Amino acid sequence: MLEQLKQQVLEANLALPRYGLVTFTWGNVSAIDRSSGLLVIKPSGVSYEAMTAEDMVVVALESGEVVEGSKRPSSDTATHRALYLAWPEIGGIVHTHSRHATIWAQAGRDIPAWGTTHADDFYGDIPCTRKMHDSEIIDRYEWETGQVIIETLRERQLSPLEVPAVLVNSHGPFAWGKNASDAVHSAVVLEEVAYMGIFSLQLTPELPPMQQALLDKHYLRKHGANAWYGQK
Amino acid sequence: MLEQLKQQVLEANLALPRYGLVTFTWGNVSAIDRSSGLLVIKPSGVSYEAMTAEDMVVVALESGEVVEGSKRPSSDTATHRALYLAWPEIGGIVHTHSRHATIWAQAGRDIPAWGTTHADDFYGDIPCTRKMHDSEIIDRYEWETGQVIIETLRERQLSPLEVPAVLVNSHGPFAWGKNASDAVHSAVVLEEVAYMGIFSLQLTPELPPMQQALLDKHYLRKHGANAWYGQK
Amino acid sequence: MLEQLKQQVLEANLALPRYGLVTFTWGNVSAIDRSSGLLVIKPSGVSYEAMTAEDMVVVALESGEVVEGSKRPSSDTATHRALYLAWPEIGGIVHTHSRHATIWAQAGRDIPAWGTTHADDFYGDIPCTRKMHDSEIIDRYEWETGQVIIETLRERQLSPLEVPAVLVNSHGPFAWGKNASDAVHSAVVLEEVAYMGIFSLQLTPELPPMQQALLDKHYLRKHGANAWYGQK
Amino acid sequence: MLEQLKQQVLEANLALPRYGLVTFTWGNVSAIDRSSGLLVIKPSGVSYEAMTAEDMVVVALESGEVVEGSKRPSSDTATHRALYLAWPEIGGIVHTHSRHATIWAQAGRDIPAWGTTHADDFYGDIPCTRKMHDSEIIDRYEWETGQVIIETLRERQLSPLEVPAVLVNSHGPFAWGKNASDAVHSAVVLEEVAYMGIFSLQLTPELPPMQQALLDKHYLRKHGANAWYGQK
Repeated sequence: MLEQLKQQVLEANLALPRYGLVTFTWGNVSAIDRSSGLLVIKPSGVSYEAMTAEDMVVVALESGEVVEGSKRPSSDTATHRALYLAWPEIGGIVHTHSRHATIWAQAGRDIPAWGTTHADDFYGDIPCTRKMHDSEIIDRYEWETGQVIIETLRERQLSPLEVPAVLVNSHGPFAWGKNASDAVHSAVVLEEVAYMGIFSLQLTPELPPMQQALLDKHYLRKHGANAWYGQK
Repeated sequence: MLEQLKQQVLEANLALPRYGLVTFTWGNVSAIDRSSGLLVIKPSGVSYEAMTAEDMVVVALESGEVVEGSKRPSSDTATHRALYLAWPEIGGIVHTHSRHATIWAQAGRDIPAWGTTHADDFYGDIPCTRKMHDSEIIDRYEWETGQVIIETLRERQLSPLEVPAVLVNSHGPFAWGKNASDAVHSAVVLEEVAYMGIFSLQLTPELPPMQQALLDKHYLRKHGANAWYGQK
Repeated sequence: MLEQLKQQVLEANLALPRYGLVTFTWGNVSAIDRSSGLLVIKPSGVSYEAMTAEDMVVVALESGEVVEGSKRPSSDTATHRALYLAWPEIGGIVHTHSRHATIWAQAGRDIPAWGTTHADDFYGDIPCTRKMHDSEIIDRYEWETGQVIIETLRERQLSPLEVPAVLVNSHGPFAWGKNASDAVHSAVVLEEVAYMGIFSLQLTPELPPMQQALLDKHYLRKHGANAWYGQK
Repeated sequence: MLEQLKQQVLEANLALPRYGLVTFTWGNVSAIDRSSGLLVIKPSGVSYEAMTAEDMVVVALESGEVVEGSKRPSSDTATHRALYLAWPEIGGIVHTHSRHATIWAQAGRDIPAWGTTHADDFYGDIPCTRKMHDSEIIDRYEWETGQVIIETLRERQLSPLEVPAVLVNSHGPFAWGKNASDAVHSAVVLEEVAYMGIFSLQLTPELPPMQQALLDKHYLRKHGANAWYGQK
């Protein structure tokens, strides 16, 4: 069932340690097959070294039930489901505790758009959520984590493919994209700009955001209707 | 004698350089066999490249005498013994000078619980000991190092498996767990949160601790009576 | 056509990930053959793993037209052309988003000459450009990026081989040299001094530039008319 | 001639990139044979990948003349000679531009003794020299670099084996030991404490030096007359 998608999800999961985004098993990638309403996600607490495509777990988007797989799905599955249900345009999701994105999440701060590295993939600041309410934490925590991410983009009137990551306050980043591979790309760029932002701010404490014209130029040449970057 | 435990201690010692926690021979792991009252510990000053299970030294918990092994045990053996004697619930101990945990130890500061990476394995701040008194340093230094660690947890009313690491002031971290592998896990997480804490604090200088509800949620889902994280 | 130069450009491009200067495809190197008025540059958006000498694109310096190659040239080609046209003494150019040089670019600050590592290859501060005007960004952006780099050196009365790199404000570094390999060398040294400068400034916030005599000594022993460093 | 010493010097030089202390060829190790008054040093500007024991250059301590070797000796040879002539107790010297030691050198600051990692090998602060006078830089620069290092230890009444490294202001570290391998050890520890010191100071800006009793304990257990650390 969904063998090709399982393979893509496996490869995207294996990319996380290769890009230095995870320690131990602290990360998970999923991807969705919209036609069948099924998502494929990493099993919970399995090491990257031992992981195979067969270990990937198939979960029903609506119900959250495991449809196939001998292992338990990632403990963050409900967060992934919440995002897929809210945003039909996304096809893959990554969660990590990558060091520098997590630093901004712990500090409870948005990552401002301070350069073209950021603008190439994120159309503006990468927001940090509000702190979750105790009631959200105590009950249905993983599902509510998704809801606070969705609320954060909605309140800022951002679409999920324009700003393909959010920092969950006191926790860490979720990133996404059209598919699992794009979601990993978002997570890598996020970590890169998170690193650079810490020290840009140290050098220039009152650093204003980059110019709108430059943000537009870089984002739109890669993601706009008339994108011309790359080989097509 | 204790061949299986020696193998586990060897593997745990070799994990230290693999996780980037040690330079040269600056680290040691031990594990204890409670039934025989014997602990197995890394020899002093032997390189990780050359180390074999046969090099591990067997030491009597009560007396500190070497029971088996042609090499001298780690110079920190008395610290390990002090902790095993005080805390029957632990089975493995790690000492390193891992860079970022040591930075907090040198700065003489606790590492606050600022995010879920921390909360997944530490139920609250990771304490730094007071400075040791000159008398403690001059006489029975390694044993007294253990005593100041024990005092630190006791004064804060913490149990060693709830907060499985302490920073020794002006020195570096000791971490522990139910066995040698868990102790390494504690040491890796400690280093991770130590790194992130430095820069979280830089971004938000007056950063308050994370919410109690979130700390509870993350710690208890992995370590509480009803833990559900992972494959069992 | 220009097989030897293509090989040099390929090797210089492959050096970027080896020196840790690039993530994904965020970097490009070119070199010029002055006699034919042709430059060789990395194709746009092709991974370093898959890249061959055949993928390098040959572009006419004056017109910017692709003369040979099945792939599109780097999206930064017009910036490279602008620099080659302005500065007949350079033979190779590197553009990266290397982390620490980009941090200074995002912060909009020059990197002061604070030590001999810097002085060995840069004869004074490494300047950051002014912010580009909206009109420069909207129209002929890549070409204008080159013009603002040229303007920056000209206003400071610097020659491009004395200070072989400029930081483009809110973007990242361009570096150059007599050939592709020298340009990579400039980019590596730039990244090194960018890293060290961040923390030197942290340790001594009012740090003055290094002494002129020391700057002269180090720069001129490697690059002056009577250079004596190395094996010739 | 001196084949064994050449091999030791080669191996010590190759250790520098392995410990992450050098970029390109920015480092050099020498060792001395006191009985013959000859020192062996890395050739200038030769890559570590290509270096062989035959490339090592034999230089007369007193005169500085090349006694054997087809390549030019390191441009820092006169600094090495100055130190060997002043300090009969040392047998090996390392010079690098290792990042964090160089950061303190650029900042013009001593590295305080802030923890046992430091105390295990350095008996007190690691001093930074005064800035060199223009006359020292212009004439006999490398020799005078040695003199300012010697002056720094002398003024602080330190012996070179008690504090086996000095930071040259606006330049970088020189480290030494009883032989080439010990000198590399000093350089590695120096880089480690340099790194940790930057961030310890960030966490606790008014951080006092460690206790004298703790400094004594750690230094003397490894280096005192009754040292007991390690396997002998």
